[in-house]
Amino acid sequence: MKALRVQKGKTGIFEVARPSAEGEALVRVIASGICNTDLEIVKGYAGFNGTLGHEFVGVIERADVAPEMVSTRVVGEINAGCGECYNCSLGDPRHCPRRTVLGILGRDGAHAEFLSLPLQNLAAVPDVIGDEEAVFAEPLAAAWGITEQVDLSTETKIAVIGDGKFGLLCALTLARVTDGLTLIGRHPEKLKIAGDIGVHTRLTNDLSGLDRSFDVVVEASGSESGFESAVGLVRPRGKIVLKSTFNGRPTWPASRIVVDEITVVGSRCGKFGPALELLETRAVDVRPLISDVLSLSEGVKAMERAAERGILKVLLRMDG
Amino acid sequence: MKALRVQKGKTGIFEVARPSAEGEALVRVIASGICNTDLEIVKGYAGFNGTLGHEFVGVIERADVAPEMVSTRVVGEINAGCGECYNCSLGDPRHCPRRTVLGILGRDGAHAEFLSLPLQNLAAVPDVIGDEEAVFAEPLAAAWGITEQVDLSTETKIAVIGDGKFGLLCALTLARVTDGLTLIGRHPEKLKIAGDIGVHTRLTNDLSGLDRSFDVVVEASGSESGFESAVGLVRPRGKIVLKSTFNGRPTWPASRIVVDEITVVGSRCGKFGPALELLETRAVDVRPLISDVLSLSEGVKAMERAAERGILKVLLRMDG
Repeated sequence: MKALRVQKGKTGIFEVARPSAEGEALVRVIASGICNTDLEIVKGYAGFNGTLGHEFVGVIERADVAPEMVSTRVVGEINAGCGECYNCSLGDPRHCPRRTVLGILGRDGAHAEFLSLPLQNLAAVPDVIGDEEAVFAEPLAAAWGITEQVDLSTETKIAVIGDGKFGLLCALTLARVTDGLTLIGRHPEKLKIAGDIGVHTRLTNDLSGLDRSFDVVVEASGSESGFESAVGLVRPRGKIVLKSTFNGRPTWPASRIVVDEITVVGSRCGKFGPALELLETRAVDVRPLISDVLSLSEGVKAMERAAERGILKVLLRMDG
Repeated sequence: MKALRVQKGKTGIFEVARPSAEGEALVRVIASGICNTDLEIVKGYAGFNGTLGHEFVGVIERADVAPEMVSTRVVGEINAGCGECYNCSLGDPRHCPRRTVLGILGRDGAHAEFLSLPLQNLAAVPDVIGDEEAVFAEPLAAAWGITEQVDLSTETKIAVIGDGKFGLLCALTLARVTDGLTLIGRHPEKLKIAGDIGVHTRLTNDLSGLDRSFDVVVEASGSESGFESAVGLVRPRGKIVLKSTFNGRPTWPASRIVVDEITVVGSRCGKFGPALELLETRAVDVRPLISDVLSLSEGVKAMERAAERGILKVLLRMDG
C-alpha cells in the first residue's frame, strides 16, 4: 500500500506492506488531516520514523475479535496503552508510559491506505457527520479537552492565542462555553471565521487594553513567542493552557510565573465522545477550516501546502 | 537609623532617615531574616534599590490610627496594595498591580532599625513564639501557601526539591499534611533535619527508582536545574509547584509539559494566620534552620554568610 512516511529524515510516498493488525482492527482510511505536529515531526520533533498522520476517518476492514464491526465507519483515539499499567487500569491509555501513538510514537500513522489500532480505540461515526468533518474528531477532542482540565463558566474571560487551524478550532469550541472569548492572531481572514460566530478577535500587533485581564489564556499558536504573549495577557492567579508542541527548547519567564502565581496547564489529547457530539449537532462547524483536499499520492505537496502561510486544514483522500 | 541597602549596585550599611510611616504603622525591628530573594536582588533580580529584607519581627512604635496597638509585637504581610483595585477589593493585596512589597518593590525593607507598613498588614505574635522563630512567619506562610493552591491529602506523594532553608521549611510544613513526602537535596546534614521528623530524604545524585512517580513536586532549589529535575520526577498529569525566583531566564521543556499534561503552579506568598498557628503549636519547629545570628551592623558579612554553601537561615538582630 501507499503511505506518506518520514524515513531517516526523508519525507515521501513509500510503498509498504499493509499493517498486520494482529489482535487489533485493520482500518481502511477514507481521509486524513495534516496537523502541525506532522510538520514538527518532519523537522525532528519526537524523533519519529514511519507513516505520519493521526487524524483520520476510515472503515473497519478486518477485526478478528469483533467481526460484526467490519464496515463500520470510525475515527480513533490515537494512544494505545499497554493495558496493564496504572494509567491503563484507570482507562486512560493516553498517559501509559509504554504507549504507542498513531503516527507519532512507535506506531505507523494515518496518511496511508490502511492503519491498525486496537478495536477499543475506535468510535463509530454517526451518519450525519461527513467524512471530511469526521477527520476533525481528533483535534476537536483535543480542543474540548481544555474544558475537562480547567473549570470554565459563561463568565470566564478566555483568550486563545493563534489563529491557525488548531487555535481556530479551540476558539470555535470554547465559544460554546463562554461569552467572554477573544481570539488573537495575525490573519484577518482567519480571525473572521471566529468573528462570524460572535467571537471577539484581535490582531497580535494591537493588543492595547487587554493586558493581564484574562482568567484563562490558551496558547495554541505553535510558536515560541506565544507563551510570552500568554504571560502578558493572563491575570495574576490566572491559568495558561499550553497546547503547542514543537521541536525546540524555549526560554520562559519562570520568575514571573512565581510572582504572579500563574498556573500553566499542559494539555494534549481529549476524549472522542464529546467531539463526535459537537460534530453531530453542528455545535462546532469545522467546514470553514478546510483549505484544501489532495490525494494521498500528492502527500508531499499536501505537507508543503499545509505549511504555507494563510492555509488552514489540508486533508488527504485515499481514493484519489 | 542604620539600614542594609542596595544602592546603584552597591550593597552596604547606610545611615538613612527613619520611615515617615505616614498613615501607616512605624515598626521598630527586633530581628530580620536573610532570604534567597535578598541574595538574588543584590544580583539584579527585581531591579530593586533600597533597604533589603522582608522577613522580620518587631514592635509597633507608632500607629496614629490605632495608638492602642503601640508596643504590640508583630510580624507582617509584605505586600501593600492600593486598596482600590479588584484584587484589593477581594482582600488580596498580594496581587494588586500597584502594590509595593517590603524590601522588594518600591518600599524599603526590614534589614533596618525601623520599617513602615500599613497597620492592616501587621499580625500580633503570640507570646509563646520567640523572636527568632517569629522571623520565620513570612517564609512559613509562603510554604503553607502550597496547601492553599494545590489539593493535598495524607495519600499525596510529594517531592520537595532543594534542601536549602526554604526547601527545608517546605518539607517540615508539608510533613504535617502528607505521609508520602520525600526531600531531595545535596547536603546530608541538611537532609537530616527533615529526616529527623520522619521525612524520606534522597541525595540529588541518586534518584534511582523515583522517576515520574510523584503526584506533586515542589521546586524550591532556587536553581535553574531544579525545574528539570521536577519534570523528571512528576507523574503524567501531576503538578509542579514552582517556588524559586531568580534573576535569569531559564529554558524549559515546554513540549514535555504538554505531552505529559503536567500542571505548573506558580506560588509566592501565603497567609500569616496559619503560619503563626504552626509556630505557636510547634507543629513546625524552625529552630534547627537557624545557622547564625549577626548584628545589623554586620549586615554585609551576614549576606555573605547566607550565601555560603551549607548555611541555612542567617538572622540579623537590630540591638547588636
